[in-house]
Amino acid sequence: MTRDEARALDEADPLRSFRARFQLPEGLIYLDGNSLGALPKAVVARQAETVVTEWGEALIRGWNAHDWIGAPQRVGAKIAALIGAKPHEVIVADSTSVNLFKLLIAAAKLSERPNILSEAGNFRTDLYVADGAAELLGLRLEAVARDEVEARIGADTNLLLLTHVHYMSGARFDMAALTARARAAGALTLWDLSHSAGAVPLDLNGDGVELAVGCGYKYLNGGPGAPAFLYVAEHLQERLMPALRGWMGHEAPFAFDDEYRPAPGLGRFLVGTPPVLGMAALETALDAFDGVTMAELWAKSIRLFDLFRALMAERCPDLRCISPADPEARGGHISFAHPHAFEICQALIAADVIGDFRAPDVLRLGLTPLYLGFEDIWRAVDTLAAILASESWRDPKFAVRGKVT
Amino acid sequence: MTRDEARALDEADPLRSFRARFQLPEGLIYLDGNSLGALPKAVVARQAETVVTEWGEALIRGWNAHDWIGAPQRVGAKIAALIGAKPHEVIVADSTSVNLFKLLIAAAKLSERPNILSEAGNFRTDLYVADGAAELLGLRLEAVARDEVEARIGADTNLLLLTHVHYMSGARFDMAALTARARAAGALTLWDLSHSAGAVPLDLNGDGVELAVGCGYKYLNGGPGAPAFLYVAEHLQERLMPALRGWMGHEAPFAFDDEYRPAPGLGRFLVGTPPVLGMAALETALDAFDGVTMAELWAKSIRLFDLFRALMAERCPDLRCISPADPEARGGHISFAHPHAFEICQALIAADVIGDFRAPDVLRLGLTPLYLGFEDIWRAVDTLAAILASESWRDPKFAVRGKVT
Repeated sequence: MTRDEARALDEADPLRSFRARFQLPEGLIYLDGNSLGALPKAVVARQAETVVTEWGEALIRGWNAHDWIGAPQRVGAKIAALIGAKPHEVIVADSTSVNLFKLLIAAAKLSERPNILSEAGNFRTDLYVADGAAELLGLRLEAVARDEVEARIGADTNLLLLTHVHYMSGARFDMAALTARARAAGALTLWDLSHSAGAVPLDLNGDGVELAVGCGYKYLNGGPGAPAFLYVAEHLQERLMPALRGWMGHEAPFAFDDEYRPAPGLGRFLVGTPPVLGMAALETALDAFDGVTMAELWAKSIRLFDLFRALMAERCPDLRCISPADPEARGGHISFAHPHAFEICQALIAADVIGDFRAPDVLRLGLTPLYLGFEDIWRAVDTLAAILASESWRDPKFAVRGKVT
Repeated sequence: MTRDEARALDEADPLRSFRARFQLPEGLIYLDGNSLGALPKAVVARQAETVVTEWGEALIRGWNAHDWIGAPQRVGAKIAALIGAKPHEVIVADSTSVNLFKLLIAAAKLSERPNILSEAGNFRTDLYVADGAAELLGLRLEAVARDEVEARIGADTNLLLLTHVHYMSGARFDMAALTARARAAGALTLWDLSHSAGAVPLDLNGDGVELAVGCGYKYLNGGPGAPAFLYVAEHLQERLMPALRGWMGHEAPFAFDDEYRPAPGLGRFLVGTPPVLGMAALETALDAFDGVTMAELWAKSIRLFDLFRALMAERCPDLRCISPADPEARGGHISFAHPHAFEICQALIAADVIGDFRAPDVLRLGLTPLYLGFEDIWRAVDTLAAILASESWRDPKFAVRGKVT
């Protein structure tokens, strides 16, 4: 495929206009929306309004006048619409890690079984959080190889903790099948949707999902360190008692009761005061999904992926694709292994194509159909091919590591 | 004292110019900076820059290019300077409630003793968090009357959890004496500084404080739901093992090690990705303290309090002051009890004097010397006197409760 042909695909793309909803630096190709989503233009005005008008003018009255206090549920309902959940099954709060901890502890206490089962190689915060939670509860964290997870579900499984789309390879678990398998064995499943929400079609209700958490700053474009979300199926909400008990999760936070009484429904998983600036950014960012379905986005994502994979196979065969080709078996990013992936990634960034590196040897590239087009893909591969052909990545400056790499 | 005399005090006030650092609505008297600090003007530009330039232009590169990743320590060091701590003894993360939980669990695990001792009537999130933590650890939360706390410290005390300045009355504990008393009995003390930091002079190191948490959105003016901070004395940092283990608290978050290894020092108490928008607002807000010492602010705070108390005794004797008169025994707000405090507070707000109500019967007014003057105090009391004299608070509209009251 030529660059002109790729451009023609963009011209025919029904989602092409969505790119205008985002501020993207001129000339830059941004393939890291799976790590930090691009800035939706509407967030700029909303953030200024939140600071200058809401905080500056309403001051403390903003909690009622601008319903800051209702943001966790209100923003949660917007996310629910993207992941196949009921509006009251999602709230926005804290970070993904803290939400994982909250749900892990509360759910694991429903069972007498000894093991939290997860995948070795899962995103590490999931394993670290589970490790800490298991230690507190006197449980064992059992992390097994990906292809052994299903067979390992058994009578000793207290809870199954899985990341739906793998942060590195992009490989996707069969959410419905694994949830059903665990349920049949008497265990609940907690899904980490950090690399799924806003990337692939999700049907949490249809798939019988009981518990989930996810990230606000990746495909949902909520900004760096945006608040995260958690999901609990309606039928389970009243059975979970939080161990992390904050005043915002109380039935009546401003009654100042001596005894903790959990709020009805999901509100009990709120802890401290909601981060209003981050909530506002995320809330407005979600409007970038208005007028498009996840099925439509996913259809374009598949085409972006297929083009990327085909062009790479042709022009950069030394970069080995480690993401599954089958759309049903993967998420919204494409990853390649190479012994010098770090340096290649730095050279790519220096050429204004932003991807990221994941240790030990993976170049990871996010495909975000809201703001990427086919010509972007063509240019990204063209840039990579030039870097490999010229071996420009061997410049020692590309081996320098930052705090975050 | 007449209004003119109060105005003359403002004219002679060496801190008068600091008010210009804040955006305050014309005509409004804001006496709720102890609940949500006013907007420092510099935050407006900083927030726009963080959104438009840092997020919008740098995108994922912002973690290194704008040192987002270093914000917890960098902002922590600025707070440390206000509370008498070393720069590396404070980090900014999560909410006050979550930080309380993190330190409570980690510290309580150092001891075999059965009781977490606190004050009945402490701010409820402290009691709720301690309740949940105690349940997880198999400990007992013992909440005793304020004047019994000291005597109750004993061989069964695992940890003493106290709020330095009481959220309702403003009564202040003797930090050095109680910390020493607990230490002599073999227990650590964890102080909640939510109503102290930025309000009263603190000397955590000088007072031998081991553990503390505090709030970013009250006297530190970080904005609604700003991230909170935690403090651990240097000598204790390496002894604490987090139970809430997130990737940001790992020694090498981007190495993706299978095993959790806590970061050296306080970094181990980071959990998820730092909330960059909230961090930026708080960081710039703290610049409002540049060029003034806490001792100078406190000297003015005492004068504001004394004037408020004297004018109220003269003009509003039905409102009973429940805050200690002795400056050493209280914080930066003044509180009054009245059976109709709720309605009076609403009438006051309707008259553009913003205070808050705390159940069951307290009108609470924050005295923030950075942006309040003596004439403000005079006008606030004058407004209150008019509301009481006319009984305008009896209007049924003032009995309507919002979600947050």
